[in-house]
Amino acid sequence: MARMQTVAAGQLGPIGPDEARPRVVARLIALLEEAKRRSCTLVVFPEMALTPFFPRRWIPRQTDRDRYFEFDMPSPETRPLFEAAAALNIGFYLGYCEAVGEGQDIRRYNTSVLVDGVGRIVGKYRKVHLPGNAEYDPTLKLQHLEACYFEDGDLGFPVFEAFAGRVGMLICNDRRWPEPYRVLALQGAELVCLGYNSPAFLPDTPEQNGLRTFHHLVPMQAAAYQNGMWIVATAKAGREDGCDMMGQSCVIAPSGEVVARATGVGDELVTCRIDLDATKAYKRFFDFDTYRRPQAYRLIVDRQGVGPPLSRGET
Amino acid sequence: MARMQTVAAGQLGPIGPDEARPRVVARLIALLEEAKRRSCTLVVFPEMALTPFFPRRWIPRQTDRDRYFEFDMPSPETRPLFEAAAALNIGFYLGYCEAVGEGQDIRRYNTSVLVDGVGRIVGKYRKVHLPGNAEYDPTLKLQHLEACYFEDGDLGFPVFEAFAGRVGMLICNDRRWPEPYRVLALQGAELVCLGYNSPAFLPDTPEQNGLRTFHHLVPMQAAAYQNGMWIVATAKAGREDGCDMMGQSCVIAPSGEVVARATGVGDELVTCRIDLDATKAYKRFFDFDTYRRPQAYRLIVDRQGVGPPLSRGET
Repeated sequence: MARMQTVAAGQLGPIGPDEARPRVVARLIALLEEAKRRSCTLVVFPEMALTPFFPRRWIPRQTDRDRYFEFDMPSPETRPLFEAAAALNIGFYLGYCEAVGEGQDIRRYNTSVLVDGVGRIVGKYRKVHLPGNAEYDPTLKLQHLEACYFEDGDLGFPVFEAFAGRVGMLICNDRRWPEPYRVLALQGAELVCLGYNSPAFLPDTPEQNGLRTFHHLVPMQAAAYQNGMWIVATAKAGREDGCDMMGQSCVIAPSGEVVARATGVGDELVTCRIDLDATKAYKRFFDFDTYRRPQAYRLIVDRQGVGPPLSRGET
Repeated sequence: MARMQTVAAGQLGPIGPDEARPRVVARLIALLEEAKRRSCTLVVFPEMALTPFFPRRWIPRQTDRDRYFEFDMPSPETRPLFEAAAALNIGFYLGYCEAVGEGQDIRRYNTSVLVDGVGRIVGKYRKVHLPGNAEYDPTLKLQHLEACYFEDGDLGFPVFEAFAGRVGMLICNDRRWPEPYRVLALQGAELVCLGYNSPAFLPDTPEQNGLRTFHHLVPMQAAAYQNGMWIVATAKAGREDGCDMMGQSCVIAPSGEVVARATGVGDELVTCRIDLDATKAYKRFFDFDTYRRPQAYRLIVDRQGVGPPLSRGET
């Protein structure tokens, strides 16, 4: 029974362009308070949970971009969230824009932290798979300038002992790639916390728009099953800065089943009672020690992109 | 239009314990003839398509096992299939038990070949992910002795230029692992042919039996989307040797959608008109050259099984 707990996706509706940090932090604290009423131990907030998703806009000047970044975590403005969490004895995952360093050496990452039930940061992750463009292209109908505004995460895919198990973090586009989940599972991850900001529609690939929800879910469902892990995936939802976001925060079981899901596009707490030991049947089924064949997987690290067939095998 | 073609899953009902090769080959040829009537260029037959799935039985003596193996491909008994394919100008994927070598040096693999429209073998694959046990365990309700009867495939995951595109092969349990698809995609695979023999029920993990079809499909659907590839997956179906098999042969589009599916559990041709160029939108979306981060994936080849967290990252 020590491995049973109630976790939550703390979905956020849109954050307004002039909505100050203290107002956003108050919304997060309200979700923590609701989580306390529902006996949660952990609330997963979205990617970039303190600000609008500004990489949809071209912002030429770094000083104008920097108002979206946190130079300290916690800061005077975010400390009340940590204090509330400690007072309520609830942990959280928080996505935000991280700036570190000074002067010409400032580095900027799309980051998440894992905070335990006494308000202490127990882990940090910096997004590895930054989608979009590294340079502004005025011909695009939808800007996505993450690769311009952030550096690649430099912490790998770390796993932390927390919440009575092993916990990994991913951010948004990471969820579409099979490799991050596997790297987490090879470190024993039982629970993956993941925040995202995904548009409901893509103007440049309209043929895929009917499948946006399916493409959001199916890689996570496969990964949960293939790695025997719980996934709590939390959206920023609703219409933010003119962009409709898909919402659909959810909890996915190690079976791959979606077992809880948001019903709206505003601030909403999606709770689910989970058993970390439910990961075991799937981890046993796949039994990596017996059945994985890493020597046959070398191309996954030896190649970045598509190349010619390695060999024609034996015929 | 050169990249449009009609492909088929050539599903087989059960093969009887005393059903001789010529009888089975006649069933395969009947499916090829039906495929010709439906203008197919390629028929994917199941794993171990010439025999019952004998690894469910404990067979102590190698000489008794060897009646399930092909020492030549084609042999006098299987050559009529190759001749029919050439006469009809249809290619095929065929799964079978392969024995190579002589005397004490015979090696045995769970193998598939890809045969082109003139009856020539253009590629061979030997199953990498052999499930089950390497030794007989009389306490198990369901035997699965593939790891006893076969060696690990030694050809990697090869990709072949064929059928106006790049084609890879997988066999049965391979489909549950994300790595094989990725290794194929990194060689440009656009179409994956896959035969399988999967029980509809697992007596030792009954809690998962309601999810058998979902677990069959979801890794393939995720992989098709994540790698931008078509998958033709073909079952041996029905009750064979006392075991109910799941059937459900299908074609999966690069969108991840199941676009064709068997309706029965007997010999059945499932056809689908596919466009290999439909892979491009997904390959472009994931754009491996720009977005993959192999340096962060190293654990996938550096570790076989689960180990401790690599590092706690920066906190």
